[in-house]
Amino acid sequence: MQEVTLVEVGLRDGLQNEATPLSTAMKRELAERLIAAGVKEMEVTSFVHPRWIPQLADAVDFACSLPERSDVCYRALVPNRKGLERALATPIDEYAVFLSASESHNRKNINKGIAETYPVLEEVVKEALHQGKRVRGYVSTVFGCPYEGDVSVGQTVEICERLLKMGVYEISLGDTIGVATPIQVKEKLKTLTRHVPPERLAGHFHDTRGTALVNAYVALEEGITTLDSAFGGMGGCPYAPGAAGNAATEDMVYMLEGMGIDTGIDLDALCEASLLAEKALGKPLPSKVLQSFSATKQQQEGKAT
Amino acid sequence: MQEVTLVEVGLRDGLQNEATPLSTAMKRELAERLIAAGVKEMEVTSFVHPRWIPQLADAVDFACSLPERSDVCYRALVPNRKGLERALATPIDEYAVFLSASESHNRKNINKGIAETYPVLEEVVKEALHQGKRVRGYVSTVFGCPYEGDVSVGQTVEICERLLKMGVYEISLGDTIGVATPIQVKEKLKTLTRHVPPERLAGHFHDTRGTALVNAYVALEEGITTLDSAFGGMGGCPYAPGAAGNAATEDMVYMLEGMGIDTGIDLDALCEASLLAEKALGKPLPSKVLQSFSATKQQQEGKAT
Repeated sequence: MQEVTLVEVGLRDGLQNEATPLSTAMKRELAERLIAAGVKEMEVTSFVHPRWIPQLADAVDFACSLPERSDVCYRALVPNRKGLERALATPIDEYAVFLSASESHNRKNINKGIAETYPVLEEVVKEALHQGKRVRGYVSTVFGCPYEGDVSVGQTVEICERLLKMGVYEISLGDTIGVATPIQVKEKLKTLTRHVPPERLAGHFHDTRGTALVNAYVALEEGITTLDSAFGGMGGCPYAPGAAGNAATEDMVYMLEGMGIDTGIDLDALCEASLLAEKALGKPLPSKVLQSFSATKQQQEGKAT
Repeated sequence: MQEVTLVEVGLRDGLQNEATPLSTAMKRELAERLIAAGVKEMEVTSFVHPRWIPQLADAVDFACSLPERSDVCYRALVPNRKGLERALATPIDEYAVFLSASESHNRKNINKGIAETYPVLEEVVKEALHQGKRVRGYVSTVFGCPYEGDVSVGQTVEICERLLKMGVYEISLGDTIGVATPIQVKEKLKTLTRHVPPERLAGHFHDTRGTALVNAYVALEEGITTLDSAFGGMGGCPYAPGAAGNAATEDMVYMLEGMGIDTGIDLDALCEASLLAEKALGKPLPSKVLQSFSATKQQQEGKAT
């Protein structure tokens, strides 16, 4: 039986793409519910400049408000030296640096070319490691770029090798705009894992075109054992507002448990957390398991009254 | 490059689970748009007693109103002798008989035990073949039953063998309540295809828990080359009203084309058909590709005005 690590990214990657602002107190309550549901690895915010992502402007306050739990790893994005300083003022356990596999997306997202981004990340990783933190790397647009279309796997290999050399322990491969299809995932991973061991890679799939779960399945087949997902399937796509967000944690858990993989997550409790998020965001979330749970619950409540 | 046959079941299995009644004229317009999008195999209605499924009560009228197209195969469900008489009064090209792999579901759905259902189907198949029609078989609840839970694959093997002996050319294996997960699909198909050649089987997955596409992918890996889906992901689950419906044709086409499999379907035209269905049903449909299409379209129209 395969072991899989699920990284819950709803409070960061999910919320980052949700327009309705949530209070720090609501985020804290959601984090508590996720923990109660069994989530152990949780990316909670990003220390980018508050102007960039107003939804995450409370990063320091929120991170400092999180319940102290030795069994939960809190993670956050750290873009640069300034972000690192803010992060170090909080009890966040693990940091993540990020860049894109495509030059144009990197420029739009980070305002720098890829080559100029390396030294910035290098400085963050070096100092973070010095402070005893583990650092993850994110590579965006691995499976397609909104500006360049297909992205060469060679470019991703090169970036992964640079990140690993910096001291990053794992690299999450992002299908940022949700265009990947299973054969593409299989082929790219076959090439990538000739250069980077699969245990150093994670799959970060978006469900913009409904393929997040099948891509995750193919990634598992290729030896990837860490997958990112967001409760409720929260989030969206900045390039198609209204489209679906991250792979939904509920659907991922349902699939994995059905494959005999123990996730340690209580699906009903997770759905309850997502129902609270739906209420706070004022909109339904796309997870199919959540929708079934919600429909069944309403039916039972209808029968009970 | 693998060849895949997509069977569009939205107008039957989709509508059957949609509460808002559509007029015969609207169904005809949707059929025309599906044909314009490149759909060649289309299940359009069911000749069950009109009282059972009011949404499909216009079966004869609708079937007779369909555009004459030698390149499109119109299909319909035929439950019994009476249904067959109604079907034979229409230009429907191909019939489908159905039963469940689980005894309790068969009793609830057909009001007969499995053993008592065989002679009814046998009569329909015999007469339909005599009239020069091809007949497909549907087996429901292959991957799980709302009353019995897991369903033994041995039972499905036996039913498939009986159906093939009757003269059915293909059997569509239904995950009626959308509970299947990829390893289960793989294992059941490995057993089934030891008894029934994969080219005689089709996969009919529901997306109640988000696994329809990954299950379809696994079915392809096991040699199945016919898949059922509904445009927009129309439909639902009678056991959890509000839950997602059939595998969405748009998402299936996106995945298949991304795997290098030519479906002959124009995704934009298909999405336009689904947008019309959304309007007619007064609700959004769950296909992720459709949602992206719709979001991008709204964004462009916003920019244009």
